[in-house]
Amino acid sequence: MKDLPPTITTGPLPASRKIHLEGALHPIRVPMREVAISNEAPLTLYDSSGPYTDPAVATEIGRGLPRLRGDWLIAQGAVAEHEGRTVTAADNGFATGARLTPAFPVTHRPLRATGGRAVTQLAFARAGIITPEMEFVAIRENEGRIAAPARDGEAFGAGIPDLVTPEFVRAEIAAGRAIIPANINHRELEPMIIGRNFKVKINANIGNSAVTSSMEEEVEKMVWAIRWGADTVMDLSTGRNIHNIRDWILRNAPVPIGTVPLYQALEKVGGVAEDLSWEIFRDTLIEQAEQGVDYFTIHAGLRLHMIPMTARRVTGIVSRGGSIMAKWCLHHHRESFLYEHFEEICEIARAYDVSFSLGDGLRPGSIADANDEAQFAELRTLGELTQIAWAKDCQVMIEGPGHVPMHKIKANMDEQLKHCHEAPFYTLGPLTTDIAPGYDHITSAIGAAMIGWFGTAMLCYVTPKEHLGLPDRDDVKTGVITYKLAAHAADLAKGHPGAQRRDDALSRARFEFRWQDQFNLGLDPDTAREMHDETLPAEAHKVAHFCSMCGPKFCSMRISHDIRAEAEKQAGMAGMAEKFRAGGALYVPVTEEAE
Amino acid sequence: MKDLPPTITTGPLPASRKIHLEGALHPIRVPMREVAISNEAPLTLYDSSGPYTDPAVATEIGRGLPRLRGDWLIAQGAVAEHEGRTVTAADNGFATGARLTPAFPVTHRPLRATGGRAVTQLAFARAGIITPEMEFVAIRENEGRIAAPARDGEAFGAGIPDLVTPEFVRAEIAAGRAIIPANINHRELEPMIIGRNFKVKINANIGNSAVTSSMEEEVEKMVWAIRWGADTVMDLSTGRNIHNIRDWILRNAPVPIGTVPLYQALEKVGGVAEDLSWEIFRDTLIEQAEQGVDYFTIHAGLRLHMIPMTARRVTGIVSRGGSIMAKWCLHHHRESFLYEHFEEICEIARAYDVSFSLGDGLRPGSIADANDEAQFAELRTLGELTQIAWAKDCQVMIEGPGHVPMHKIKANMDEQLKHCHEAPFYTLGPLTTDIAPGYDHITSAIGAAMIGWFGTAMLCYVTPKEHLGLPDRDDVKTGVITYKLAAHAADLAKGHPGAQRRDDALSRARFEFRWQDQFNLGLDPDTAREMHDETLPAEAHKVAHFCSMCGPKFCSMRISHDIRAEAEKQAGMAGMAEKFRAGGALYVPVTEEAE
Repeated sequence: MKDLPPTITTGPLPASRKIHLEGALHPIRVPMREVAISNEAPLTLYDSSGPYTDPAVATEIGRGLPRLRGDWLIAQGAVAEHEGRTVTAADNGFATGARLTPAFPVTHRPLRATGGRAVTQLAFARAGIITPEMEFVAIRENEGRIAAPARDGEAFGAGIPDLVTPEFVRAEIAAGRAIIPANINHRELEPMIIGRNFKVKINANIGNSAVTSSMEEEVEKMVWAIRWGADTVMDLSTGRNIHNIRDWILRNAPVPIGTVPLYQALEKVGGVAEDLSWEIFRDTLIEQAEQGVDYFTIHAGLRLHMIPMTARRVTGIVSRGGSIMAKWCLHHHRESFLYEHFEEICEIARAYDVSFSLGDGLRPGSIADANDEAQFAELRTLGELTQIAWAKDCQVMIEGPGHVPMHKIKANMDEQLKHCHEAPFYTLGPLTTDIAPGYDHITSAIGAAMIGWFGTAMLCYVTPKEHLGLPDRDDVKTGVITYKLAAHAADLAKGHPGAQRRDDALSRARFEFRWQDQFNLGLDPDTAREMHDETLPAEAHKVAHFCSMCGPKFCSMRISHDIRAEAEKQAGMAGMAEKFRAGGALYVPVTEEAE
Repeated sequence: MKDLPPTITTGPLPASRKIHLEGALHPIRVPMREVAISNEAPLTLYDSSGPYTDPAVATEIGRGLPRLRGDWLIAQGAVAEHEGRTVTAADNGFATGARLTPAFPVTHRPLRATGGRAVTQLAFARAGIITPEMEFVAIRENEGRIAAPARDGEAFGAGIPDLVTPEFVRAEIAAGRAIIPANINHRELEPMIIGRNFKVKINANIGNSAVTSSMEEEVEKMVWAIRWGADTVMDLSTGRNIHNIRDWILRNAPVPIGTVPLYQALEKVGGVAEDLSWEIFRDTLIEQAEQGVDYFTIHAGLRLHMIPMTARRVTGIVSRGGSIMAKWCLHHHRESFLYEHFEEICEIARAYDVSFSLGDGLRPGSIADANDEAQFAELRTLGELTQIAWAKDCQVMIEGPGHVPMHKIKANMDEQLKHCHEAPFYTLGPLTTDIAPGYDHITSAIGAAMIGWFGTAMLCYVTPKEHLGLPDRDDVKTGVITYKLAAHAADLAKGHPGAQRRDDALSRARFEFRWQDQFNLGLDPDTAREMHDETLPAEAHKVAHFCSMCGPKFCSMRISHDIRAEAEKQAGMAGMAEKFRAGGALYVPVTEEAE
């Protein structure tokens, strides 16, 4: 990312303050964002941004975030600290001297399940236990609501409750319909839930580039992404220093961090896919699990016999993990070691509660390849793997495409629900056309909003730089905001209770010419304010009953107020009418000069 | 618009040249854009940009575009020149001296139907006549194809043919399912068609602001919008100089120009809605019809009894024309003069072939107000008016919302088809959420793509500045490209034959690392190239088998080639494998230094 500031972005969003809601079952405090509105009660919103937007918390990346997750698992003896794996030079790509990113200054001995226990949220949910994490997400999902407004929407079979209770969370996790990615070693985490019956979430990808990044830059990428609403962040770093940079990110991350362990494993074998082995991969899983990675993308669904199915594709295999594994399989002419060792992978995951994001190594990379034999063959295998993981008490979500024209999107969701037994779906877009490089955040937001509506639980963002280059700071923000609006459009269409509160509050502000409220209630107050001020910068225009788009004479909303005043006067409701008239006096006169 | 260049933007898009396809029935030459591809046959694309992208045509805005439309109507005596209405000072808002935009230097005596004839495309279609305009759009829609590739898609009852014939065009127009907005006085026009069984079109709005614009600026806005793909342009100018500026635009416009005559009528009565009258409105219609405006937005569907239906709305009436008419109706407590005089309006329109865009004055302005009683009451009235217009041989399309959550979009299309008898639908977005001011091109592209898929024939663009201010040059381009990709996504989903050709050509270029082809085949080659070059500017990287997004080691497409080579080698197809290996040699080595 270019143009990064040297420091971490902190401070609240405009007109916002951090509030905390207390748990009833557990000693937890759930952070929320409260947006002040000039003439209404404040609006409480879901807040992914962590302590960075809380002026009451002094963050310092060399210290890491407060490790707030409770010690109940430790107290019960379900988990225990141990020495852990020794960090090797290979973990950081043999970087030395000035090229070596310093280790994170504070060391924590890793936790691990004792006695072969499963310490996953799924295991507890099945045992009828409501964990602190479950109560945390229940409170979080309700956004301070204590009742549900009137709802409409089409949820396509989803079962979204009026209010989320801790018991509902438990039941959804027990059913495999939702996951809380929360590695027991990621104690800085503010837990969140991914599932069809909860708010649609978004993920942002970060990762160091070939050019060595400083750890401050990497942490700032994460902080910047969650400031604008990223619910989880995937660290897709390649190259050197992967281990140390990941430590810096995890110790400073209030959101779940996902990785593709295969990337680091490939670095350990010098980038030669054929040299990968189960042993190296296994070691990498343990390394990352001990650091606290919350979910692993595992491309175990791509099997040897599926590779020929890609031969006539227009764009072959476009998943990085998928292409690496395909190359390995083909070279050795052997079944994928990820597939063959999947149960052992589950054994590792259950000891740390690392969730799986089962990767779609054969996702389509073009409209031409959408919904083909290769894609759906792999999806069915992901369904098999889901059941293996569930048998081991591991939490699972399923990754999805990619590039899909609109008329083929619904089938993706339907097939996923059917073959993957309602495990949460996590899709990249999908892009609905290939003809707009530079605008693929938009081609994909169309598909993302739709598939989110149909039931996808988390949407992986796409930035404007997709297919072209590394996203910079502005691209990351554009990608996150674009996906937030797509996820929200999906929530509205699903009839998510409370989703419309924010639209309505903003629309009321718009209709009443409360410009500051309109900016502050939007996803990106800064950009909205800047755009408005480009043509009407004066403070006086912040209460003007028009904007530069139509000007004062042609402002339909202003005329609407006149109409209401007229109608109410005709109906004898003079009082209300006067109120609107008073508003009218605020019009900023347009002088001949200004014209 | 700020930052406008002093001159009109001309010259071809990258790797593109203008070609012309000849008519078989009429002496017409249909301009198309041919994009050169490095190792494939060139791709012929629909081209809305007019002579400005043709280096063989010297454009000069003081002269106007060549008036290429044939004289067959004149030759037949169906239309004749006449003196026309005298331009008054009120037409230009009483601007004088330096404030008066000069009249267009060349005057043309207006044409008008003789003997009360209807000279509309609908009248000719009903009479079984294939006009030059019909043949022109038939050739244009096929984009140089002579056969249809394999198709899939879900067209929701649309009947899209493999190839568009002139007779098919005639039949669709005769049925009222499509229109060719083509005022007999707009002789510079390159005709285009709007209908559910044709390519989805987009409109861009321009218009002078309160700040006096020069005529060059206004013409450049139009040229800039069509360069990127706007199919029609609405001139929504208000304030002074409306008449003269419109002349400059029309004489230089190869695309249909639409207006909202009510805006100019309101200027003529000093901005006081109550002072509007049928006489002033009628005079304005004739004024604009004689100039050559191709379609009029007429808000005749908003009736007096509907106004109370908006009383409890969150955002009242948000259509400018709608609010003006509502104010008039309420003040006089009378039925709308547009509704009462609609037959006379038709009499004017049929004499010049001005198409109607029946305005949705009661469209919702927020998610809260979507699909409400007011909106659908007006829609049913628009259906009545459609039949009145058709009885007068007038061409009609219907305007639609606005702000609609995803789950309520389909109902808009279904209701429109049902109540408006399949007249083409022309929607603004719709925006699928209200919470993203500054990003409403995206909130609305989601809705636009969906409603386009469901059957909407033309999508009115929304720029990032929607709700905030006047779009500048960059905003207009962003809005147009965003809507082009939405319209194309709709064409793909409808199974429009040939739509996928461009996606496939671009995807092949992507997979084969033909970067220049990938840029050139995109909707915005300049932006794609700039984004790529931000991180890999060297010319050598234009043939590199990776980009900066994943870097060389992790490029899935590169590995895909290796996989194919491996697979083919294993299968004994050494020849093919060698080809891929040769490609591999082009990788640009990443030096230690560059890392």
